[in-house]
This record gives sequence, structure tokens and C-alpha cells, in this order.
Amino acid sequence: MTQEEMLDVAVGEARKGLSEGGIPIGAALFSADGVLLGSGRNRRVQDDDPSVHGETDAFRAAGRQRDYRSTIMVTTLSPCWYCSGLVRQFNIGAVVIGEAQTFSGGHDWLAEHGVAVTVLEDQRCVEMMTEFIAAHPDVWLEDIGE
Amino acid sequence: MTQEEMLDVAVGEARKGLSEGGIPIGAALFSADGVLLGSGRNRRVQDDDPSVHGETDAFRAAGRQRDYRSTIMVTTLSPCWYCSGLVRQFNIGAVVIGEAQTFSGGHDWLAEHGVAVTVLEDQRCVEMMTEFIAAHPDVWLEDIGE
Repeated sequence: MTQEEMLDVAVGEARKGLSEGGIPIGAALFSADGVLLGSGRNRRVQDDDPSVHGETDAFRAAGRQRDYRSTIMVTTLSPCWYCSGLVRQFNIGAVVIGEAQTFSGGHDWLAEHGVAVTVLEDQRCVEMMTEFIAAHPDVWLEDIGE
Repeated sequence: MTQEEMLDVAVGEARKGLSEGGIPIGAALFSADGVLLGSGRNRRVQDDDPSVHGETDAFRAAGRQRDYRSTIMVTTLSPCWYCSGLVRQFNIGAVVIGEAQTFSGGHDWLAEHGVAVTVLEDQRCVEMMTEFIAAHPDVWLEDIGE
């Protein structure tokens, strides 16, 4: 499975979130051999739950795992500090990011700490976030604590 | 309300977790004037949910807040990177920690980034974690991704 194919799963989650009226950020956790362990999306708006970011939702959906070093977290947007901290604490080995243009979180910090980081500059992701931020700046700023 | 009184709430959550068979780490989010916004505890074991650390549970329980700068996160144990990232992303202004002897996470990093960090060296917290780690080293290492 290519990184682009893995990103498609996260994009599907982001689109589902958008259709629910939520912030369009999706994520998925894969095993090294491309098995989907769990996927999820930001659900701040849908569930009124500020703790559910795309990455934390995918991590939760994957259930308890004994070792994350060989896993790959795929996310439509550069992970915020909350989600970057998740990756670092659990030693997730690789992060594949749809885009880091509309928001740049902790992915450089993760790379410094040995995580294999790839930014794909996916235009679907850029457009989804650009449109969402323009339409709902208040919700977006709330989601990143600004 | 003193820091010690705020910590008592987090200790109560940790003890509740222990009585449920879980990892004894509790947390609580307070407003600047000492109003409890939300409290919670690690529920990896109880809910089979690796995403529920004490701090993330307290943050969730507090619901959507527009500004965290004046809030205080109180936790029985030094926050791991996941929970430290939460504090940094949402600009939580202060963190009060029961102890950092049995585990040291990202609290120095938070202090470097302007968070007011206090470590109380509370012996109840030290004993709870020391006993839990000795009795269930596997669950503890799983919880910190080691």
C-alpha cells in the first residue's frame, strides 16, 4: 500500500467529518504491512468533544497495542502539539501528512526525535482546510487553542 | 483553593481508578478562581481505551472552552508527552503535578514554553504509583509506550 493510498483513508474520514458539519481532519493508523488498525476524524463539533482530534480518534479506534514502533500514523493535516505528543509518547515510527500549509504543528519536532515524517502536499487536503477555515474561522481557532 | 486542595481532587480520581482495577493516575482542570471544570482518570484498563489518560479525560470532561490560558491542570503524575502536548496546544497556563519521581514526562519542556509548572512531591502519589508499577509493570509500560 502506498502512502497516497493510506492518505486516501484519512481523506475519506475528513470528508465524512465535513459532511457531519465538523472540522475536516481525518487520520488512520496502519501496521507496517499496510493493515488498517483504526481510523477516525476530528469530532469537536459533532460530539462537542475537544479531545477528539483525527489522530487521537484513529489511535483510540486501533485499540490497545503493545508496540507502535512499526506503525504509521497518516493524517490529512500536520499534527498539532497534542497529536504530536501522542506520536512521540507511544513511539509511533512514521507519520504521513497530507499537508502542512494551512497549519504547521509539531512534525519537525517529531522528525528531530527520530520519527520518519513525510509531507505529501496533497491539494485535496489543502483545499478542504482552506475552505473550512475561511467559512468557520471561530471553530478552527477554538480547535487549535488560539 | 490551594494547589494541595486541587491535587486532592486528582488524587480522588486516581484512587477511584485504582478501585476499578485501573492505572492510578487522576487529573482535574480548574479555572483561575478554583472552580472545577472537569476531572478524570486513566481508563486504559477499565475501558480498554489507550487514549484516555488522566489529563485528556479531565480536558474532555471540561467540555469545549474558548480559552485555557487562565486554567490550571492538576495531575497526580508528571504528564507524558501526549498530555504535555495537550497542555501546550491549548495554552493551558499552569500545571500542578503530584509527583515526578516514578515517571518524568514533558513538564520541563512545558516550563520552557511558558507554562507555570509546580511539582508538589506528594507522598500519596509516589506510593500509589510505586505500588502499582511493582504489581503491574506490564500495564504500566504499555501505558507509556515502552
